[in-house]
Amino acid sequence: MSSKSGGMDVAELKAYFAEAEERILTQYYEFLRFKSISADPAYTQECLECASWLEQKLQGLGFTVQVIETAGKPIVLAKRSGNPGAKHILYYGHYDVQPADPLAEWNSDPFEPVRKDDKVFARGALDNKGQTFYFLAAVEALIEHDALDNELTILIEGEEEVGSPNLIQSLPELSDSLQADVLLVCDTDCFRQGLPTITMGLRGIISLEVTLRGPNRDLHSGLNGGVCKNPASEMARLIASLHDDRGAIAVAGYYEGIRAPSDTEQRAMDALGFSDQEYQQEHGVLPSGGEQGIAPLERIGFRPTIEINGLYSGYTGAGGKTIIPASATVKISSRIAGAQEPARCLELLQTHFRAHAPKDLVLEFPYKEIGGAPFFMSADTPCVVRARELLQEIFGVEPALLWEGASIPVVADLAQLVGGQALLIGFGLAQDNIHAPNESFAIKRFLDGFLYAAIALQKL
Amino acid sequence: MSSKSGGMDVAELKAYFAEAEERILTQYYEFLRFKSISADPAYTQECLECASWLEQKLQGLGFTVQVIETAGKPIVLAKRSGNPGAKHILYYGHYDVQPADPLAEWNSDPFEPVRKDDKVFARGALDNKGQTFYFLAAVEALIEHDALDNELTILIEGEEEVGSPNLIQSLPELSDSLQADVLLVCDTDCFRQGLPTITMGLRGIISLEVTLRGPNRDLHSGLNGGVCKNPASEMARLIASLHDDRGAIAVAGYYEGIRAPSDTEQRAMDALGFSDQEYQQEHGVLPSGGEQGIAPLERIGFRPTIEINGLYSGYTGAGGKTIIPASATVKISSRIAGAQEPARCLELLQTHFRAHAPKDLVLEFPYKEIGGAPFFMSADTPCVVRARELLQEIFGVEPALLWEGASIPVVADLAQLVGGQALLIGFGLAQDNIHAPNESFAIKRFLDGFLYAAIALQKL
Repeated sequence: MSSKSGGMDVAELKAYFAEAEERILTQYYEFLRFKSISADPAYTQECLECASWLEQKLQGLGFTVQVIETAGKPIVLAKRSGNPGAKHILYYGHYDVQPADPLAEWNSDPFEPVRKDDKVFARGALDNKGQTFYFLAAVEALIEHDALDNELTILIEGEEEVGSPNLIQSLPELSDSLQADVLLVCDTDCFRQGLPTITMGLRGIISLEVTLRGPNRDLHSGLNGGVCKNPASEMARLIASLHDDRGAIAVAGYYEGIRAPSDTEQRAMDALGFSDQEYQQEHGVLPSGGEQGIAPLERIGFRPTIEINGLYSGYTGAGGKTIIPASATVKISSRIAGAQEPARCLELLQTHFRAHAPKDLVLEFPYKEIGGAPFFMSADTPCVVRARELLQEIFGVEPALLWEGASIPVVADLAQLVGGQALLIGFGLAQDNIHAPNESFAIKRFLDGFLYAAIALQKL
Repeated sequence: MSSKSGGMDVAELKAYFAEAEERILTQYYEFLRFKSISADPAYTQECLECASWLEQKLQGLGFTVQVIETAGKPIVLAKRSGNPGAKHILYYGHYDVQPADPLAEWNSDPFEPVRKDDKVFARGALDNKGQTFYFLAAVEALIEHDALDNELTILIEGEEEVGSPNLIQSLPELSDSLQADVLLVCDTDCFRQGLPTITMGLRGIISLEVTLRGPNRDLHSGLNGGVCKNPASEMARLIASLHDDRGAIAVAGYYEGIRAPSDTEQRAMDALGFSDQEYQQEHGVLPSGGEQGIAPLERIGFRPTIEINGLYSGYTGAGGKTIIPASATVKISSRIAGAQEPARCLELLQTHFRAHAPKDLVLEFPYKEIGGAPFFMSADTPCVVRARELLQEIFGVEPALLWEGASIPVVADLAQLVGGQALLIGFGLAQDNIHAPNESFAIKRFLDGFLYAAIALQKL
């Protein structure tokens, strides 16, 4: 597995980056300018253009590229063969981004990258265009220096932020193309600044929109107040019924499949030293949500949640309007953990709403989505052991193991294709505001990611 | 109190209307075209122009008109003296209208009146421009025929839909100008088509906006779900805490001042024959809201309510967005009855929110408003007895007595100025969609109102 050129070490990679930075960032900004928002059909064309851009980029690097049409956004699949006997590495990332709302809270145009205080501000700056682009920059550096011996398959999809429905559906057909020795995903965070982190678990996710319809139109709240059920109040009662007074989920059967952390997992979490004060400093509130009596890192990594993502009913303009709204709508996503089954959880949630909704109002589920199953790695998996050594070499720090609360819908399925050899290592931080206004990524950590990717591509 | 010309009887009034209808409707449409939405500061100029239009209209009829500036929208006050010994009648109406949202649900432009199936469709078609304009048309008819002997003061304000704050504040200064023998208000409904109705009670109203703030920005619901309290869920719990499981208000002390209907009141309500099926046909839902175990008309007329008028949090666009929202906001109005005191109720509501809100989130009240006290008339009040006779004469039907759930904020105060001689008679119906899309008023009922106003102005 030795490179023809002897490969590139960390010092050479740093020198390369210093010289190529301008060129790398220019292309990174091009990538960020596509408004590739998968949730909103208004941006379908931008998603197609973004996929084409990736196709050209990867062809330019000598990859054989397929842009696979789906019922939704296309999947970019690129392949480059390796030296005889080399390993086969599969990279998974996504080119779609979250909506940019609320636009008014951005300090600059979310789709016109701005560099400020050595950070790049844009929607997708980190998630996942930033992390995917340092990976591509590492690939380019190695190819230029004839240092990429391993076979490499790059899979970049356009629907991660909406639960990867079409990639998940395409997996059976694609599975032959995706057989590999190890899966690399760069879509996660460091636990804290300067602490390289291997993500050992991800929660699964399901989503559900619920609408409760009452009267046939908005009614006068004086003439009808006290006789017409108010869909907004009834929706509030429904939402309140999802949790008990101690923050535990009150949906019958929901906890089936949940397990407590093992001793090893507990020790790894204890080593991280979660700090309430650090959390408050970063987020403006204490970590007081979720189930009482369970530690924060266990709540994030090992416990399910049901979160309200959006809620609207009636008049939301300036001042007041004395109406009983005709309907109320809530957007919900639920993170699931352990061995919870997504389809079963989605059914339990709907059953709960059906059981608790007032019988004389109309209950609808405008959308529901199975976004992916939970994913868990064991600490003695060979690729994890090797990654710990490499991260220690590159950064001079013992890396952290983290069970994350986020989801990357397709990871559990992809990990199965590579026999469980999956490495989730990324360089985001909470302060990067992913899914929120003013998303950013520090150039320093872009470089960290570049170094990690280049070393991993050579030495895994 | 005899007219110099002998007055106009119902037959003459009908003939007049048939001849003048085109001219009356043309001016009514002009009145409707002003976007005089008091709740939204964007429409302040339209309110000013609407007040000027009324000033010119009333000057044209020979009234002495003052347009009284306030901290909000101006008040139009017009006076015309009567014959010696004649009575002094005070008319109260409002030229402001509710917001037109949701615009998408209108079948035509809310501010470009459309006549269809002998109804006029526009925001304000009934409430209160329509009812005020048939009153003005009646005044004009009588003046043209030299048949208006009584002294008449016309008070038309521009903030009824936001609780009349500036008129209420101006009442002490205006009270000398507003002394009269009887108050006429045409801002209420008939209980059903063809049944002239005297409104014997109105509920008072207070309004409150409540915001709950959590994290310093929208957070990723995976990374933070289970550690960060969700302001939307917490708001739902707060809203749910306002009522108990039987629909009764759970705010401590709120029912103080509430009384049951007297035997006379109960008999008058029983005579109306409230029909669940009629309600469902008109509104699309059964009258299953409010307190269990209390009859619908008592719930509407004699019991308080706390209604959610609007609710929003987080992402409300297309598809999903996996966030924990930074805040949640609810718009609430509460109708109060009996001897409930508005200021006290507003304080109790705020106390309830303070007591039930999670201590580690920030609770704010972006606006609060005392919209007016409850108003109750006794059936043996002289003006009510006389009005029953007149309505019977005009329409050939025994009129109904109704305790309405709506509010006209300033009515309780104005009624005091006229020694309790207040007549609330109007010709709206539930199907007219006031405060909702596609508000309308049937020409037939516009004529009913015209006839009633012209007879009342002569014979009260």
